Amino acid sequence: MIDVIAFDADDTLWENEGRYRDTEAEFRRLLEQYHSPEWIDDRLYETEMRNLPHFGYGIKAFVLSMVETAIDLTEGRIGAADIQRVIELGRTMIAAPVELLDGVAETVAELARDHELMIITKGDLLEQESKVERSGLGDHFGKVEIVSRKDQAAYERIAARHGFRPERFLMVGNSLRSDVLPVLAMGGRAVHIPYWTTWRHEEADEAERAAADYARLDSIRELPEYMASAARA
Amino acid sequence: MIDVIAFDADDTLWENEGRYRDTEAEFRRLLEQYHSPEWIDDRLYETEMRNLPHFGYGIKAFVLSMVETAIDLTEGRIGAADIQRVIELGRTMIAAPVELLDGVAETVAELARDHELMIITKGDLLEQESKVERSGLGDHFGKVEIVSRKDQAAYERIAARHGFRPERFLMVGNSLRSDVLPVLAMGGRAVHIPYWTTWRHEEADEAERAAADYARLDSIRELPEYMASAARA
Repeated sequence: MIDVIAFDADDTLWENEGRYRDTEAEFRRLLEQYHSPEWIDDRLYETEMRNLPHFGYGIKAFVLSMVETAIDLTEGRIGAADIQRVIELGRTMIAAPVELLDGVAETVAELARDHELMIITKGDLLEQESKVERSGLGDHFGKVEIVSRKDQAAYERIAARHGFRPERFLMVGNSLRSDVLPVLAMGGRAVHIPYWTTWRHEEADEAERAAADYARLDSIRELPEYMASAARA
Repeated sequence: MIDVIAFDADDTLWENEGRYRDTEAEFRRLLEQYHSPEWIDDRLYETEMRNLPHFGYGIKAFVLSMVETAIDLTEGRIGAADIQRVIELGRTMIAAPVELLDGVAETVAELARDHELMIITKGDLLEQESKVERSGLGDHFGKVEIVSRKDQAAYERIAARHGFRPERFLMVGNSLRSDVLPVLAMGGRAVHIPYWTTWRHEEADEAERAAADYARLDSIRELPEYMASAARA
């Protein structure tokens, strides 16, 4: 029996990582006269990983990492107009409409009739709040937890705060590393619904993945049937 | 009777705004060949206010506003090295040690013996979490709420979530606009402990301030005595 179904938000309920991919493509175009696309991607990723402990997740951190990478890769020859352009890319991302993934609106409404639903999302507070609000899904989710990281301790804190038992908790998300493995580690259950693209940082180790006990669905549309069959088992 | 005492964090429990003032001074030095200090301050503030709805509060937003202001005020003549310098200023702020204000450690420990204490702070999730953790005060605060804004609706959501009655809730903070007026508006009580400097954005309207019913203390050290005399009254 499951008391609470929690959903990841970015790339589980709505489009996100694709926007980062698009922005990275713009960023590569800005620097294409200086370096190869692969080199630019790798240096940007390195900068992001170096900045992660200080700046955390989200678009502002991403913009700061792009600006630093651009300065570094051009040895300071990048012009102020191009740096302004990078900041504008970030502003465009922040203002982008929230596009629900296929099947989300119907499935969430259906599950909300018989289950307590919550959102557990990682990232920038204002960005995530704004997306929940603009998604139109807010009424279905009694609780929204925005956290700075998704590890086992974070899930345990959430379980303690809301008083739910891990074994009656199901997490649904697109990231094995953030949504599946730490939830299994605390004794909860998890459903993985892959998204078409995954940020390198969210990739899970193959051995860990093979050993983990979770369900994999192709679409959120399959979740009600999965819940029903899990209840019968 | 008061069930819960909530504290603002920045400039109530620990030093914050002074660091912004110091960074602004560095920023003015970077641009002093182009403009007067007052002009730089005013343009930076304008940029921050324009960016606030998109970028929110915190150091990353502040850095992005400084970069934009520097590009704007130099008509793009600012060099990449100076932009990198602005980003370094932000990194220095994020890494700065958490310096408790005078009397905080003892007073919080004393109040925690007889009251439920919480922190309600506005800003960047990762920054605020990191400061609570590094402050060494975390064990005294059963709940920590990090919010993207502090208006009456935000306080009402917090009261509902934790099931406390506004009339038995006391908020302590340095900002009339964020810590005092919205709490009074929801029917709670508030203590104002001014800090030596206030960000313009946090300044309260004089008429609103005059009409408001709150206590003003010079130091957090006066809070236990205030609580005792309020209980007797």
